[in-house]
Amino acid sequence: MKILAIDSSGLVASVAIVTEEECIAEYTVNYKKTHSQTLLPMLDAISAMIDLDGSSIDAIAVAKGPGSFTGLRIGSATAKGLAAAWKKPIIPIPTVDALAYNCYGSDKLICPLMDARRSQTYTGLYKFVGRNDTYDMDVIVPQTVVDIEQIANDINVRGEEVIFLGDGVPVFAEKLQEIMRVPYSFAPPSCNRQRAALVGTLGISYYKQGCMEKPEEHAPEYLRLSQAERERKEAEEGK
Amino acid sequence: MKILAIDSSGLVASVAIVTEEECIAEYTVNYKKTHSQTLLPMLDAISAMIDLDGSSIDAIAVAKGPGSFTGLRIGSATAKGLAAAWKKPIIPIPTVDALAYNCYGSDKLICPLMDARRSQTYTGLYKFVGRNDTYDMDVIVPQTVVDIEQIANDINVRGEEVIFLGDGVPVFAEKLQEIMRVPYSFAPPSCNRQRAALVGTLGISYYKQGCMEKPEEHAPEYLRLSQAERERKEAEEGK
Repeated sequence: MKILAIDSSGLVASVAIVTEEECIAEYTVNYKKTHSQTLLPMLDAISAMIDLDGSSIDAIAVAKGPGSFTGLRIGSATAKGLAAAWKKPIIPIPTVDALAYNCYGSDKLICPLMDARRSQTYTGLYKFVGRNDTYDMDVIVPQTVVDIEQIANDINVRGEEVIFLGDGVPVFAEKLQEIMRVPYSFAPPSCNRQRAALVGTLGISYYKQGCMEKPEEHAPEYLRLSQAERERKEAEEGK
Repeated sequence: MKILAIDSSGLVASVAIVTEEECIAEYTVNYKKTHSQTLLPMLDAISAMIDLDGSSIDAIAVAKGPGSFTGLRIGSATAKGLAAAWKKPIIPIPTVDALAYNCYGSDKLICPLMDARRSQTYTGLYKFVGRNDTYDMDVIVPQTVVDIEQIANDINVRGEEVIFLGDGVPVFAEKLQEIMRVPYSFAPPSCNRQRAALVGTLGISYYKQGCMEKPEEHAPEYLRLSQAERERKEAEEGK
């Protein structure tokens, strides 16, 4: 099985080709350029490197959201276009789940923090549990958008050690120092941001469970209203 | 601090730019092309993507070996050339240590297995230990080249659960099923091969400890003789 994976949910743009055994190629850029400039050239580059034939791909896994609205649209549009052209299904992967998968095999609580602006974070809580010959990632709190205090207090109540990661860490580190009452640490640079290989690895497991969509069915999941929608709603409600 | 990291110790060719906070870019190809064809074009590609100025790099971290003799020579030669041109130090990183760093934060024993041919493996044993606000990777058995039975029996004697990873896993999986007496599992595709971001992350910690070389001092560490050297030695000894 061979999966093309895409993550452009945050500042990171990342593409990868993943099989059940290994990651064949991965290209990740975490820089200010917009994803519309980077994503397809990066895919072209790895395709040339590994002599990729689109018809050999079984499905396209994409970080479906939450995240940057523009980033998600570019990722989903790219996935839909390629999936329609190649006649392949799309595997939508929760963004925060893929981010958490960075800490595969840890016995601590895993808490990804994506900066959602306005003191909010796209987050969730995860735990790796050994089953048979592998570690499954259990979703303790499914991905959501909340104030940083809310997720921090939730972890304090659980009383378990936690590893934080994601682009929310530099934003919320000071706040966490105030709030946290349990031991906590931050994941290192090698595993603290989005990577398409994570989306692809989860994608393989979703594919086996039949969790796929037709390209025309797929849409990003924003988890909250965009700024424009929010402002219109507030205006309509006379706020 | 900004580190250019290179790993071409195995079938994987990988380059990355890593800071103390995050990985800015990473390009990894795990395919049959030789590293002399891939490594510099990949570095060129990411340099263009992130507008990299060589003089902004503090040091070049390279997987110093063990591994494929040709792969190591290409990686080291590339690092030495760039380091000499940019007047920057080289940070030599033990290949197996970087591979083990894939499993950051796990509480299990970590055992990378690189296929060294002739039933041998480049391997080592590692454990992540929480200290202050981070997890340090302790080296339990430093990288070495041994028969697969030897490292497997060593783990059995220790009696601790272990996670295996690396390109030796598909080669030795059947053998491990025979030998292993403790619970074991295999790392998933997102974290079971070399990645330059791992070399770069360890590189930052080495840099802070002053573990660097001048470009002219640097040489790969093969851990054993090449086939040509071995055959000459055997001929000289009249075997």
